[in-house]
Amino acid sequence: MVPVGLQWMNGTSTMMDFLEEPLPGVGTYEDFNTIDWVREKSRDRDRHREITSRSKESTWALIHSVSDAFSGWLLMLLIGLLAGSLAGLIDISAHWMTDLKEGVCLAGFWFNHEHCCWKSNTTFTDRDKCPEWKSWSQLILGHGEGAFAYILNYFMYVVWALLFSLLAVLLVKGFAPYACGSGIPEIKTILSGFIIRGYLGKWTLIIKTITLVLAVSSGLSLGKEGPLVHVACCCGNILCHLFTKYRKNEAKRREVLSAAAAAGVSVAFGAPIGGVLFSLEEVSYYFPLKTLWRSFFAALVAAFTLRSINPFGNSRLVLFYVEFHMPWRRKTTKLGKYPVLEVFVVTAITALLAFPNEYTRMSTSELISELFNDCGILDSSKLCEYVNDFNSTKGDDLPDRAAGPGVYTAMWQLALALIMKVFITIFTFGMKVPSGLFIPSMAVGAIAGRLLGVAMEQLAYYHHDWAIFSGWCSQGADCITPGLYAMVGAAACLGGVTRMTVSLVVIMFELTGGLEYIVPLMAAAMTSKWVADAIGREGIYDAHIRLNGYPFLEAKEEFSHKTLAMDVMRPRRNDPPLTVITQDSMTVEDVESIINETTYSGYPVVVSRESQRLVGFVLRRDLIISIENARKKQDGIVSTSVIYFTDHSPPLPPSSPSMLKLRSILDLSPFTVTDQTPMEIVVDIFRKLGLRQCLVTHNGKLLGIITKKDVLKHIAQLANQDPDSILFN
Amino acid sequence: MVPVGLQWMNGTSTMMDFLEEPLPGVGTYEDFNTIDWVREKSRDRDRHREITSRSKESTWALIHSVSDAFSGWLLMLLIGLLAGSLAGLIDISAHWMTDLKEGVCLAGFWFNHEHCCWKSNTTFTDRDKCPEWKSWSQLILGHGEGAFAYILNYFMYVVWALLFSLLAVLLVKGFAPYACGSGIPEIKTILSGFIIRGYLGKWTLIIKTITLVLAVSSGLSLGKEGPLVHVACCCGNILCHLFTKYRKNEAKRREVLSAAAAAGVSVAFGAPIGGVLFSLEEVSYYFPLKTLWRSFFAALVAAFTLRSINPFGNSRLVLFYVEFHMPWRRKTTKLGKYPVLEVFVVTAITALLAFPNEYTRMSTSELISELFNDCGILDSSKLCEYVNDFNSTKGDDLPDRAAGPGVYTAMWQLALALIMKVFITIFTFGMKVPSGLFIPSMAVGAIAGRLLGVAMEQLAYYHHDWAIFSGWCSQGADCITPGLYAMVGAAACLGGVTRMTVSLVVIMFELTGGLEYIVPLMAAAMTSKWVADAIGREGIYDAHIRLNGYPFLEAKEEFSHKTLAMDVMRPRRNDPPLTVITQDSMTVEDVESIINETTYSGYPVVVSRESQRLVGFVLRRDLIISIENARKKQDGIVSTSVIYFTDHSPPLPPSSPSMLKLRSILDLSPFTVTDQTPMEIVVDIFRKLGLRQCLVTHNGKLLGIITKKDVLKHIAQLANQDPDSILFN
Repeated sequence: MVPVGLQWMNGTSTMMDFLEEPLPGVGTYEDFNTIDWVREKSRDRDRHREITSRSKESTWALIHSVSDAFSGWLLMLLIGLLAGSLAGLIDISAHWMTDLKEGVCLAGFWFNHEHCCWKSNTTFTDRDKCPEWKSWSQLILGHGEGAFAYILNYFMYVVWALLFSLLAVLLVKGFAPYACGSGIPEIKTILSGFIIRGYLGKWTLIIKTITLVLAVSSGLSLGKEGPLVHVACCCGNILCHLFTKYRKNEAKRREVLSAAAAAGVSVAFGAPIGGVLFSLEEVSYYFPLKTLWRSFFAALVAAFTLRSINPFGNSRLVLFYVEFHMPWRRKTTKLGKYPVLEVFVVTAITALLAFPNEYTRMSTSELISELFNDCGILDSSKLCEYVNDFNSTKGDDLPDRAAGPGVYTAMWQLALALIMKVFITIFTFGMKVPSGLFIPSMAVGAIAGRLLGVAMEQLAYYHHDWAIFSGWCSQGADCITPGLYAMVGAAACLGGVTRMTVSLVVIMFELTGGLEYIVPLMAAAMTSKWVADAIGREGIYDAHIRLNGYPFLEAKEEFSHKTLAMDVMRPRRNDPPLTVITQDSMTVEDVESIINETTYSGYPVVVSRESQRLVGFVLRRDLIISIENARKKQDGIVSTSVIYFTDHSPPLPPSSPSMLKLRSILDLSPFTVTDQTPMEIVVDIFRKLGLRQCLVTHNGKLLGIITKKDVLKHIAQLANQDPDSILFN
Repeated sequence: MVPVGLQWMNGTSTMMDFLEEPLPGVGTYEDFNTIDWVREKSRDRDRHREITSRSKESTWALIHSVSDAFSGWLLMLLIGLLAGSLAGLIDISAHWMTDLKEGVCLAGFWFNHEHCCWKSNTTFTDRDKCPEWKSWSQLILGHGEGAFAYILNYFMYVVWALLFSLLAVLLVKGFAPYACGSGIPEIKTILSGFIIRGYLGKWTLIIKTITLVLAVSSGLSLGKEGPLVHVACCCGNILCHLFTKYRKNEAKRREVLSAAAAAGVSVAFGAPIGGVLFSLEEVSYYFPLKTLWRSFFAALVAAFTLRSINPFGNSRLVLFYVEFHMPWRRKTTKLGKYPVLEVFVVTAITALLAFPNEYTRMSTSELISELFNDCGILDSSKLCEYVNDFNSTKGDDLPDRAAGPGVYTAMWQLALALIMKVFITIFTFGMKVPSGLFIPSMAVGAIAGRLLGVAMEQLAYYHHDWAIFSGWCSQGADCITPGLYAMVGAAACLGGVTRMTVSLVVIMFELTGGLEYIVPLMAAAMTSKWVADAIGREGIYDAHIRLNGYPFLEAKEEFSHKTLAMDVMRPRRNDPPLTVITQDSMTVEDVESIINETTYSGYPVVVSRESQRLVGFVLRRDLIISIENARKKQDGIVSTSVIYFTDHSPPLPPSSPSMLKLRSILDLSPFTVTDQTPMEIVVDIFRKLGLRQCLVTHNGKLLGIITKKDVLKHIAQLANQDPDSILFN
């Protein structure tokens, strides 16, 4: 007299097949929870084995097996194409809208300034001033001279900036709150195995793409590189839905997201190798070699898609096209409670201060490009207004020269721009618009570097007999390159903010295209990392993760305390004993009352309460779903039914209610450590295997449990931080 | 009445301090054994903690702590300098000795051909034929013309080649047998945690450096890049002895060796980033981010040291300077039993066949350089003897042209060279001289690529109306670049042999210095990897590791079988039960008889035989050393003394012999898995945590043990290979 329902349960309860979701919901995760890497990877291997074994049966199954094997590469191709296209779209739109603040093209309002003048037939020497392009004062007043025209242009500039930024913040607020900031700290947390539903969804993608264009165009002190990583990851996540292999497996999907992050950096900087290293060094958590290779492929496809889209035909990708952004101190800003007001105020101040100074009015990437530039003999920029002495010039190799009045003016303007950038950037970071940190911090470093470079150059010119110059700098020689100082400054500032090392150097050298500057760049990156580490160990991403209380187990920091597993496990010394479920003596009612009385996300199953010998581990979610389902669909399951986790169940007397067999949801291989295990080893196991929890035994008896949250709280406590700042499981 | 010896044992038996080597020998490893990564890393953290806590006590200790923190960087600097210097020395010597086969410089016998003619005052157009440089026939006969002079030069070429190669094989045989081959498979195995004493020692370094020069100069079909990685690792290992931190810790030393391998590739190819990626992708096993950054530093220092040594002042480092090598089928060559004869025969055949064909007579790197070269208008090489049509030439951009007689001759010679290279290289690999595979396989690929490229070019020239050319190749246009075909061919061939992916592309693009070729190179690397994987999954390094039976747990291959821990553990189903030691009831005699009767490298310690509840794990070596030491130095320890592994021992009756407390050598946190754990998870744990062994439990009772060797044997068995091919523990 085996009931129908029981037969059904028996049918699915062969070993390990709980991984194949006998019930909908079993084996999935709740929002804001940590995934179990080991289980996810097991599930994928089971799936792979199944497809491989079926492939011998029919041609169709063989084709399925081959297409399954290549789906990863196809996915990479699609991600590269989509990320590259979106980046191209964002570039073009942002360029057009940035120019819209200054004027409009009569030949067609959809042309930006540069494009408009290309269409013009005038000569190329004054291509910035072609008749088709009208500044707002020219359009409204009919001329562009005089104080009133200047004020009108100023006014239009501020109005457009406010319009763009307010539109951006309203769109973010209304449709996709996850679209603000750079997204890198959250992506880092997601990649480490955390679930944030919707963070990489289609609404976030659409709104972030639109608002990123608006935010960049508004002239705020922010960059687009960090958000581009987020956009690329959204593409990756959405495209995962096309393939069962990646849609259903959280671990496999994170491999794809790592590659998508690399593609994002690749299009942001035009640096495919730098992108892969950035993903490896800064963002990813689990990065097998297969992902390295796939990331490289995705990054290359994305970079070449962007390059082929680029309608301006210049060598932007290799030369210079940098930015990124980072939210900072989001929690402590009082203004943060009024996001729209905050954006209004910051944009207004930025626009008002930026317009009069030509170095802040131009887009930040143009500024950096100009600062990196080494002055040629025909350069018309103010920064290159030196006193020319053509007698001592040999070919292109210009000697150090005395600075002309233009250089002195530029120095003052740059000094003011430096002060403004530093302050405005601090306030811009935390705003509820897509924002990145890369470009602003590079700009700050580049300005400081250029100032120092010019100062050194003039010092060397006027005092070339000083001891420090005498060895290598004779009169009339080219011994100081201010552009190189700017480049090194930019790398140093960025390195200090993000603590990137190898990827920073590789990105910088891919940007500037010269292997010869690798030594000063490396020295700058190392020095800034050491100095910054001496002040505080955390980079900006890690600080942000900590401020938000995400459960992120840092892989770079060594755990250096001498505590043992028994100091961290629950229950603590004076707490009631660990809540356990016995394998063959508890009723449905008993288990339900345990579930209702506790909030733990899982329970160890033991042979008996007395022996405390561990059998396995069962997840709360799986238990609830299975019992609910059995009560509904299985005959004879009542509150007094006994739950069996054993392989074989004893014959029941005819009067007793039918039993509930739940071995299929039992994890028979839970991880255990002894109570004497040093915490450094426990931390290592959690990191490397991606565990959610680990059971603690003493001389073979179950003693307690350590969850990832316990580990993070313990680390926070030892670092004298508030352990309750860890918010999620 | 506590004996003196026992007090001493008590003094050291506080928790965990068995890591600090209470006895010499405890905690060290035997030759050809696997290290325990977890224990080594624990020891290093203990050491670090001790130094940090002491640093607050005195200024001296603070200085010690700071110098300890920077010792890693200092070590990297030294490795970079030494590896770069040695590579420079090898370059110069090999260049000189290669030229010695052809002639001698009268201005000074220590000048090579190029250098000799630089010293000469003759004009530069015929600098290869300056009067100071005499070929052997010119020196002996007084002239260089005619058949007899040719035969004399031929004879001297063969004699020198034989002399060099025989000297090399005799030196290797006599002084450092580990110096043969490329060393990369062994380094890979060592980095994965295996001990081969002397493999990275000073004798290996000295003999390998000398014999590498001899082997390269002899003109054998081998390269110097793989051996340079071995040389750099020897430098790293030897320099480790300067710092206690690295001398005493096997895990820390392996971090240094990973960085040294990167420095080796960096100097071999002039590709610092490629070197780091090669070390990450191909060689290293445990590669934390800190090592990434340090590897990069070491690689840069090495590359710049080599560049500053380079006495020829050319841009060799960035342009082209490639080779590597790989032993192959060493086991199956019958000639292998007579290494000197083997070298004699192979060298004689190589030299006899190589001299008449100019493409095999020139050094392989020169050959590759010439094959990569795109023909300019003034190129005098035979490969560039096209029919010039100056009317259609615009500037430097040459259109496709009809091949002249020189090109046809070159094609025939290259085809012959291809056949010869393929066969000779196969036999050269396994010889007992330092030898690398990179250059020979790149040469094979480059020749094939150039042949195909020229064929395509001529096809396009004569049939530009064919459908495949019509879209993009009009008459008189430059549509085919044979040099690019050679480059892609070289990358494809190398990729097929080694299965490198990202690092191959990065090395190739660092060698050739052009980001624009990255797409064809990547397509070539991917295609060749896929094709090669379809034929056999193993790259040449992995094949070599398997042939030698090294215990290497491949991190790239996924374990895809559905076996459980209970299927792999010992004892097997019908074997006698697991040998265990009880914690408080066995005498010295009992334990000694267990040690003598079994050969296991460690024993689990349990509460009692009946309960089989696990307490810890004790290593055979530690047990032997401790008992021996106690018998010698501790009063009252006799064969009937009881060994206690417990924390507290009961008071003994006065008549009984004194007890031996051995808790200090007990590992209280052995790793355990349940018998139901899938092997894929067990393999993952072994890989990621670097375990030597793992205990297996069922419902809390100890059941068996799985060692790394068991895992490897199981994998071999499932792959239908001989499980007994795994030779070491």
